[in-house]
Amino acid sequence: MTQIKNAAILGVSGYTGAEAVRLLLSHPQIKIKALTAQRRAGRALPDLYPQFSGFDLPDVTTWQDVDWDEINVVFVALPHGASQDIVGQVAGEVETVIDLSADFRLRDPDLYMRTYGRPHTQQDLLSKAVYGLTEYARDDLRDARIVACPGCYPTCSLLSLLPAVKADMLELDSLIIDAKSGATGAGRKASDGLIYSQLTDGAHAYDIGHHRHGPEIDQMLTSVSGQDVTVSFTPHLLPMSRGMITTTYANLKKGLDFQDLRAVYEPRYCHEPFIYLESPGVVPQTRHIRGTNQFRLGLFEDRVPGSVIITGVLDNLVKGSSGQAIQNYNLTQGWNETLGLAAVALFP
Amino acid sequence: MTQIKNAAILGVSGYTGAEAVRLLLSHPQIKIKALTAQRRAGRALPDLYPQFSGFDLPDVTTWQDVDWDEINVVFVALPHGASQDIVGQVAGEVETVIDLSADFRLRDPDLYMRTYGRPHTQQDLLSKAVYGLTEYARDDLRDARIVACPGCYPTCSLLSLLPAVKADMLELDSLIIDAKSGATGAGRKASDGLIYSQLTDGAHAYDIGHHRHGPEIDQMLTSVSGQDVTVSFTPHLLPMSRGMITTTYANLKKGLDFQDLRAVYEPRYCHEPFIYLESPGVVPQTRHIRGTNQFRLGLFEDRVPGSVIITGVLDNLVKGSSGQAIQNYNLTQGWNETLGLAAVALFP
Amino acid sequence: MTQIKNAAILGVSGYTGAEAVRLLLSHPQIKIKALTAQRRAGRALPDLYPQFSGFDLPDVTTWQDVDWDEINVVFVALPHGASQDIVGQVAGEVETVIDLSADFRLRDPDLYMRTYGRPHTQQDLLSKAVYGLTEYARDDLRDARIVACPGCYPTCSLLSLLPAVKADMLELDSLIIDAKSGATGAGRKASDGLIYSQLTDGAHAYDIGHHRHGPEIDQMLTSVSGQDVTVSFTPHLLPMSRGMITTTYANLKKGLDFQDLRAVYEPRYCHEPFIYLESPGVVPQTRHIRGTNQFRLGLFEDRVPGSVIITGVLDNLVKGSSGQAIQNYNLTQGWNETLGLAAVALFP
Amino acid sequence: MTQIKNAAILGVSGYTGAEAVRLLLSHPQIKIKALTAQRRAGRALPDLYPQFSGFDLPDVTTWQDVDWDEINVVFVALPHGASQDIVGQVAGEVETVIDLSADFRLRDPDLYMRTYGRPHTQQDLLSKAVYGLTEYARDDLRDARIVACPGCYPTCSLLSLLPAVKADMLELDSLIIDAKSGATGAGRKASDGLIYSQLTDGAHAYDIGHHRHGPEIDQMLTSVSGQDVTVSFTPHLLPMSRGMITTTYANLKKGLDFQDLRAVYEPRYCHEPFIYLESPGVVPQTRHIRGTNQFRLGLFEDRVPGSVIITGVLDNLVKGSSGQAIQNYNLTQGWNETLGLAAVALFP
Repeated sequence: MTQIKNAAILGVSGYTGAEAVRLLLSHPQIKIKALTAQRRAGRALPDLYPQFSGFDLPDVTTWQDVDWDEINVVFVALPHGASQDIVGQVAGEVETVIDLSADFRLRDPDLYMRTYGRPHTQQDLLSKAVYGLTEYARDDLRDARIVACPGCYPTCSLLSLLPAVKADMLELDSLIIDAKSGATGAGRKASDGLIYSQLTDGAHAYDIGHHRHGPEIDQMLTSVSGQDVTVSFTPHLLPMSRGMITTTYANLKKGLDFQDLRAVYEPRYCHEPFIYLESPGVVPQTRHIRGTNQFRLGLFEDRVPGSVIITGVLDNLVKGSSGQAIQNYNLTQGWNETLGLAAVALFP
Repeated sequence: MTQIKNAAILGVSGYTGAEAVRLLLSHPQIKIKALTAQRRAGRALPDLYPQFSGFDLPDVTTWQDVDWDEINVVFVALPHGASQDIVGQVAGEVETVIDLSADFRLRDPDLYMRTYGRPHTQQDLLSKAVYGLTEYARDDLRDARIVACPGCYPTCSLLSLLPAVKADMLELDSLIIDAKSGATGAGRKASDGLIYSQLTDGAHAYDIGHHRHGPEIDQMLTSVSGQDVTVSFTPHLLPMSRGMITTTYANLKKGLDFQDLRAVYEPRYCHEPFIYLESPGVVPQTRHIRGTNQFRLGLFEDRVPGSVIITGVLDNLVKGSSGQAIQNYNLTQGWNETLGLAAVALFP
Repeated sequence: MTQIKNAAILGVSGYTGAEAVRLLLSHPQIKIKALTAQRRAGRALPDLYPQFSGFDLPDVTTWQDVDWDEINVVFVALPHGASQDIVGQVAGEVETVIDLSADFRLRDPDLYMRTYGRPHTQQDLLSKAVYGLTEYARDDLRDARIVACPGCYPTCSLLSLLPAVKADMLELDSLIIDAKSGATGAGRKASDGLIYSQLTDGAHAYDIGHHRHGPEIDQMLTSVSGQDVTVSFTPHLLPMSRGMITTTYANLKKGLDFQDLRAVYEPRYCHEPFIYLESPGVVPQTRHIRGTNQFRLGLFEDRVPGSVIITGVLDNLVKGSSGQAIQNYNLTQGWNETLGLAAVALFP
Repeated sequence: MTQIKNAAILGVSGYTGAEAVRLLLSHPQIKIKALTAQRRAGRALPDLYPQFSGFDLPDVTTWQDVDWDEINVVFVALPHGASQDIVGQVAGEVETVIDLSADFRLRDPDLYMRTYGRPHTQQDLLSKAVYGLTEYARDDLRDARIVACPGCYPTCSLLSLLPAVKADMLELDSLIIDAKSGATGAGRKASDGLIYSQLTDGAHAYDIGHHRHGPEIDQMLTSVSGQDVTVSFTPHLLPMSRGMITTTYANLKKGLDFQDLRAVYEPRYCHEPFIYLESPGVVPQTRHIRGTNQFRLGLFEDRVPGSVIITGVLDNLVKGSSGQAIQNYNLTQGWNETLGLAAVALFP
């Protein structure tokens, strides 16, 4: 029988940390042994998140107080910046680090510096990290010791684009990603702009032209295509809790048509356990993947000749964060990657 | 090893039917063998509810086309009226009928007639049905062949009140239940009053003084107390999808105080797998039980001397309907009643 | 022609202050001359509230920097505590003080101390303040120099109850007010509990048994009835921005029936410009008074004999705060009380 | 003194009809004389829309029962198809027809046929209709007798694009409009897909590649540019009641840069009473124009060199429909175009 692995979750006061707890509680091979949150140490988790009342979970501690001897894997759900410093200290103590922050996603420390406004302090670890866009990283994930889980927007954007980009079907200077996210994407911050009455019943774009996920998307597309790619990327904040859409616009290369596109996506995704390509004409909706690790996408011919539209949806806290993190860890262990992730969406 | 039981779910186009599918997909002892919806027969379930894409489920048929020989249990998620007629026809074909409608809840056919405006056509079956308020019906559920699952409001109200009423602590003519429900409680009906723009960002009471769940609550309280009870019961519709609160006001009998109340509830509920009594001062919230079979309640001393306030919350589609139905079926089979119902709430 | 009055609004960074600006911009007799917010002084109002772009408004200053010589009336939209201190300093500078805070609502300084946890420092002014529940204070409002505008919950509760209490129709020890409010009632505070993802798609009670509006309701009912009244009062927070419901339960005095109740309310409210008694059987909804100064109510016979249910709705930021404040000021000036308050609700 | 004009509103059971009533009630020069809704004839308007209780309004009739002799202007808020037939019958009875439907927007009857799937029966009237995108139609609106009010998406898209297109700044084959709308855009239809629980807490694209507003946008851009323009246009449905965003992506022509764009928009829009160009870096939000006739837009440099992003917001029921209709009528009468449209947004 497979051995149980013990997990620590760092940063459990935030939404991605709490979501990792929710998902791991139903994972048959992982036991949660430690939960940390520096400013909430000493509390029981249900004091922060009442939904965990009645479940068997350790109290919250500082990360310094974790008994690292008993931990096999650490899920790091800390803000960027904080993450790299702590990963630098605990990486040697555990078999596997699954980092949900942005700190190990960009391969180039200079790009990290320009994007996140601070130097990268763990360049040695950075060079070893695997970028865990699961469906495109399975070989590297096997036996990976540090996994950088992609951002929510890059996950949604790249899963939408990669089959076509890999098949060299798109004009790479034509890529426009119009993204929309629910409010949990902004985390659990007590800021004026996030309070209920400021966000409900309205919508707006933000970080136009300079969101930090732009370079992360470029990095992967550049790597896969061998060309220097800069995508247009514009996120919007919607009055909903979870869920993300990317609507991606692209021009097909000369000589290709829409049916060629479908012919590439169908075989690529038909056996993926968490990716669902909608039937022709069906538009995916965020609510139908709420709470799940699914990514659903639809392919559409634009009314502009030669252009296509790809609309992809995922739950930013699951496939866009903690779910993909667990899927990645499953693969590092040689397990079935769906372990702990089989739930049906909560709809309505 | 325990035998797998085969289930049919009737009325799968409605929300409680779909919720039964969602929950049963993770039940280790039940296999879904048939799904019915008269006007959607011939369709695949994901055509009605896209969240089920990729799950292994039978196509939708009419109930007449079900191969009853292979069905052990039928979950009936039909509207009242329709339910009794069909239960009358299929009850003989299966081991167990779990009815989620209102048709077998009221013991007295005359009361049914007055409340639902039509005669009861299955009085023989009615007399055999067990009223499945699980935590108060375990003895009767063992080997029950027809289970009438309580309404969502009665479940929330009765779980709030029964410990005190059984202990004869409350003035029974003082009971006021102010109830609030999300919109899924009204089902999936294309009616003008339920469309998004009519319901969002506002709230209102409805059916004041004459909601059909009033007599159902009375029936149980009368039975338990031996006195004729008529509760004040007023439901409200809130701009949320799932979730229900009952805020119950009651006067303590002379000589009792608030601590006596807590002393009765704590031992009664501390070992219940799905009932969670909040610590003193903590108010339960619907969002913390979203998608789960939990009922959470808080006990409060009112500012009016001698009065108490009990606030209970549940998910109307789970503990208020399909979850309690499965919990009941588990008990009829002598299984652990938590099978298939262990999920953490989806929050945020 | 009537003289234009110049207004200062103190505390314009909060929702009630901003709402006063919105309403006063359409008032034909009032010109906004000063806006204050201590931490936002020097900013233009649209920096805080973009909806005011393009309207002719003064920049935000501190209250110390207001040129009081040119101000006739000050609308004080400050937190309790802060309000009384500043009112103490500016009351002598202006003709009229309209206070929207809680500071001048409770007549008894000791009750204020017990309720708000700090001594009242302006007892002299307190003794002169008129409690501005408009429809019951018109005589006192004429020529009033300090008006204490009622809380949102007391406005909704008292307009629901006063006709019956004045007519001595209700058992005063039976009054139960179950109240529900949208999130703007909690103000514009960057607190963890108010962020979008914590509040959406769920509901809960709060401050059970000890909300500060309880004593304010008691004070008026005690004054009107001549008896010591303590109401049961329980507020709930709903996932909506504006709007409030109070569902009030009461027992009729012996010998009275439901029709007697209607016979008292109809003549009392039929000529009120902002109060609308629904036709028999019609339930008022918060969304139909969104953005207006209306209070709508419905009277219902309970299923419990001898009991009645009164459901009232208002917009907490208008009739529950800034709208009633303007209505009150109109009366102090001998103007038509509807000036500036005639808008239709924004629905849907 | 200006003469009062009498208005009839046809189709008052729908949201745009009701919104026209709301706005006209505060218009100083227009009196509402007739309201029609074929299936609600004989009812009082508050039976359909309770927010109108207490306002002085005629009862609902059929359009055949309107006394056309006393009507000066008819606002037609009927579905496309129905509108043209009735306009054909009443156009001769009134001075001015303001049509809010799609029936008179497309100049080419063949394009109408292809887009709306039925022949145009009023081609004579069609040839006389003025396309009322107000800020670009003032000359034609003066003395216009039939005004076709633009669709909500075309209004938002064209106000975003026209200054640049008129100045020949954009590559016309690069225009991509990603649009997002609240649910009132779909009208008040009791359809399964619009019910609250199907729409809340989620989002999705719809009509990808074939929404009917695409050809309407093309028509104007083609007319203005003298080139054949086909835009990419993709609408999304958001969980909010009112409000619309268009995020428009375009490539600048060679030799132009972002500052050139700003230099064109600023003088064009700085004197427009209802158009507000945000300061550099500020993103407009739908909630800040809720209930108003404003259009707000922001100009942004994309991270892709040579590309720009224009984000525009409006209230689909006001500037996107009934508000622009009134603005247009004001101009046909030579009145100040802001009459009846001066309100501040209802926020929060």
